[in-house]
Amino acid sequence: MPALLLLLSLGSVCCLQRGLSAPPLTSHRGPAGRAQPRSAAPYQYRTRYFSQKIDHFGFDEDHTFQQRYLVADQQWRKDNGSILFYTGNEGDITWFCNNTGFMWDVAEELNAMLVFAEHRYYGESLPFGNKSYSDSKHLNYLTSEQALADFAILIQHLKETIPGARNAPVIAIGGSYGGMLAAWFRMKYPHVVVGALAASAPIWQFEDLVPCGVFYSIVTNDFKKGGQCCSESILNSWGAINRISSTDEGLKWLSHAFHLCSPLKNQQDVAVLKAWLSETWVNLAMVNYPYKADFLQPLPAWPIQVVCKFMKNPKLPDKLLLQNVFQAANVYYNYSGAALCLNTSESATRNLGLMGWYYQACTEMVMPMCTDGVNDMFEPRKWNLHAFSEECFKMWKVRPRPSWIPSVYGGKNISSHSNIIFSNGRLDPWSGGGVTLNITDSLIAIVIPEGAHHLDLRASNPGDPKSVLQARALEVHYMKQWIEKSRHKH
Amino acid sequence: MPALLLLLSLGSVCCLQRGLSAPPLTSHRGPAGRAQPRSAAPYQYRTRYFSQKIDHFGFDEDHTFQQRYLVADQQWRKDNGSILFYTGNEGDITWFCNNTGFMWDVAEELNAMLVFAEHRYYGESLPFGNKSYSDSKHLNYLTSEQALADFAILIQHLKETIPGARNAPVIAIGGSYGGMLAAWFRMKYPHVVVGALAASAPIWQFEDLVPCGVFYSIVTNDFKKGGQCCSESILNSWGAINRISSTDEGLKWLSHAFHLCSPLKNQQDVAVLKAWLSETWVNLAMVNYPYKADFLQPLPAWPIQVVCKFMKNPKLPDKLLLQNVFQAANVYYNYSGAALCLNTSESATRNLGLMGWYYQACTEMVMPMCTDGVNDMFEPRKWNLHAFSEECFKMWKVRPRPSWIPSVYGGKNISSHSNIIFSNGRLDPWSGGGVTLNITDSLIAIVIPEGAHHLDLRASNPGDPKSVLQARALEVHYMKQWIEKSRHKH
Repeated sequence: MPALLLLLSLGSVCCLQRGLSAPPLTSHRGPAGRAQPRSAAPYQYRTRYFSQKIDHFGFDEDHTFQQRYLVADQQWRKDNGSILFYTGNEGDITWFCNNTGFMWDVAEELNAMLVFAEHRYYGESLPFGNKSYSDSKHLNYLTSEQALADFAILIQHLKETIPGARNAPVIAIGGSYGGMLAAWFRMKYPHVVVGALAASAPIWQFEDLVPCGVFYSIVTNDFKKGGQCCSESILNSWGAINRISSTDEGLKWLSHAFHLCSPLKNQQDVAVLKAWLSETWVNLAMVNYPYKADFLQPLPAWPIQVVCKFMKNPKLPDKLLLQNVFQAANVYYNYSGAALCLNTSESATRNLGLMGWYYQACTEMVMPMCTDGVNDMFEPRKWNLHAFSEECFKMWKVRPRPSWIPSVYGGKNISSHSNIIFSNGRLDPWSGGGVTLNITDSLIAIVIPEGAHHLDLRASNPGDPKSVLQARALEVHYMKQWIEKSRHKH
Repeated sequence: MPALLLLLSLGSVCCLQRGLSAPPLTSHRGPAGRAQPRSAAPYQYRTRYFSQKIDHFGFDEDHTFQQRYLVADQQWRKDNGSILFYTGNEGDITWFCNNTGFMWDVAEELNAMLVFAEHRYYGESLPFGNKSYSDSKHLNYLTSEQALADFAILIQHLKETIPGARNAPVIAIGGSYGGMLAAWFRMKYPHVVVGALAASAPIWQFEDLVPCGVFYSIVTNDFKKGGQCCSESILNSWGAINRISSTDEGLKWLSHAFHLCSPLKNQQDVAVLKAWLSETWVNLAMVNYPYKADFLQPLPAWPIQVVCKFMKNPKLPDKLLLQNVFQAANVYYNYSGAALCLNTSESATRNLGLMGWYYQACTEMVMPMCTDGVNDMFEPRKWNLHAFSEECFKMWKVRPRPSWIPSVYGGKNISSHSNIIFSNGRLDPWSGGGVTLNITDSLIAIVIPEGAHHLDLRASNPGDPKSVLQARALEVHYMKQWIEKSRHKH
């Protein structure tokens, strides 16, 4: 269980229990009739559906499903336009569309049509409708390779059907897992996209390509920078929880102190509480943006600084320390002040496809994570592939293949590819598995010292630090270069 | 039926009816105890087996099968050796091993270990033993993508287990479909192979990338060059067969004149006879080597010249013309003089996996072919995808996806790749779908004017024309360059 929770950070909260039926075949226009102010979602786009093979890599399963994609062509120029193609990741594509303001911001400058393609098995793009998650047989086509093939075939379709698009250069853009997909898309389908912007893409968070502790040590550093003794307070909180939860009275006290909706009953509940707290600190590190934002949760500017204000004294007696920890966590879960109690079984990230990412983590996306309580502020936990594999088998009847992703996408040996920007925020824990040094003069690393998880993909904001403005300018510079170069070919 | 037969040229004669069981797990040494003279197969190698996932691209089917591969390390140098890796195509790998003398000839110069990897579903590498071809469910994993993944995982295994191999540069080499695989392997797995020699690889014989008539027009040109009026004789032979076969007496005469093992009974048999003759001319074009050879059949040097000696007068009366055509075909089928009768149901190519290639042609490897009787010497036949698809569905319960190969491997838009040599013999009908002009300074085309189907991959021979010697020298030059460049990385 803990091993799986460690992987949650890239995705959460299941949208599948709702039992979505197959999406309608007709397209419809987004709710907004006019251009929206840049910071206010939703942007204006059209929703479309495209018939995709369920299995690109085999011929026995010959059925199709409807893949959803969003199109915004307000800035598109038929004569010399480009196409910015968001390689959708683990969630509803409308959410990524509304949270990738960068693409909307640069559309005019690049005469670009924006396309946001939903990843199969997420949002409305369910290959087998509400049976998609029913068993390993139906889940069999949830892989990155199938998703990339979807993208390639969809772009081919757009080029064939949109007047003026045939020779339009396409650039893949994505963040997080979507950034990994953008990079891999350029690597595997360089004939389809002229380049890729892979923001906060931990393509090396696999096998032993980076130390398994790097992720949590970056989280810890963020809290060290967030306020004096902040990380020490968190480090000490685990022992405090363990000591207090050792009695029934303590369990009661803890439940009350943390305003838990369901009181803690046993040590398993305590483990869940600790995992939930860990996830909270992780998510804060990911969304530690320099301005008020609502990405995973509504939060103030530099939220880690805000939570750290409650955790200045790590030497306090257990109960006082934990009351402070509660105040801190409450910033994350209850910044609006509306929550009556906190629910540890409710994940801290919304809008993302928990079930799908669970399955992907149990198959291809095996990202080893570990903590030692020395280089990080967490309870020590080793990476245990065997235990992880057993859990996966129990849950999905599949077993992870940890070496597959490096085998198929090249691991660190990717220098023969070209035209990929890897951008990373130094504050983002995922930057530990990212590319942060130039590989060649066309495999570019951009590091944003004040950046959290793909800050550069967010809409421009008055609170943006200079480093992200520079990063975006450089990204546009390279994209223009790729576009220019591709024009000379036609 | 005819549409399928057109595609036979890349593969034939089923080896599956034999009902091969799973191969032994232990390796054994080849029969020969010492180095063989270069022209005489078998060469000395060890046979090995490696456990491969049946499905690399899905996790529901988690079983493995034993992939056969052959290793020859007599010339291998641990300190600065290279690995030449044959990307096996549609047949028993020992046959390709013994017919790719070029690799044996250059092993010493490149300090190379030779590895010949068998393609799944051929030879002994049957994913489901003798059930592998039982239905579309079992055939589902017979794709080029799965084969490439096998190669990548196998090479990874070799690098991890063979002392000194970890940093050894690997070069993919293949001919025909194997050449396509070699090229695609470098495109999709550039982290695994530093370059590829793709000999006679018709990677553009798909969709409308080249005119569908190019293949048969090259065959025709070969016969035009083979002797005066030779192609006209063949062109006229179809009408003669049609006229004579219109009566029962004519059918009897034809059966006798062609020494057929089973007499012709009806027009369907006549169609088979004509298809069999077409295939004979096609195969002669493919193996029109400048010296006595036994590739598909034992044949004299420049066999087209030999057969054309029998077809100098296209204006002869029907029966005389057809008697000459028989003499010509008899060179191909009965050069040894041992055959008592000719069998039109027996394919003209041996050692290859007919069933497997049939299936591949019905799924991914959809290579449009057509004839018009004007630019070629064949009866006019249009490319009919619909009819082809119906046949495929009848036979395998699958339907071809003609646009998939260009979508996944890039079609003509492959310039962002590197380090691939495309070699083609000008005489080879498959050169029409091949890359015969340089694309970039590292995507090199080598054309061998006197070459038939991958002549350059054959063992060196005193009868080799200068052009193939030059081609091989250039190939070695580039391979050395790739090896040299990769050394600087480590």
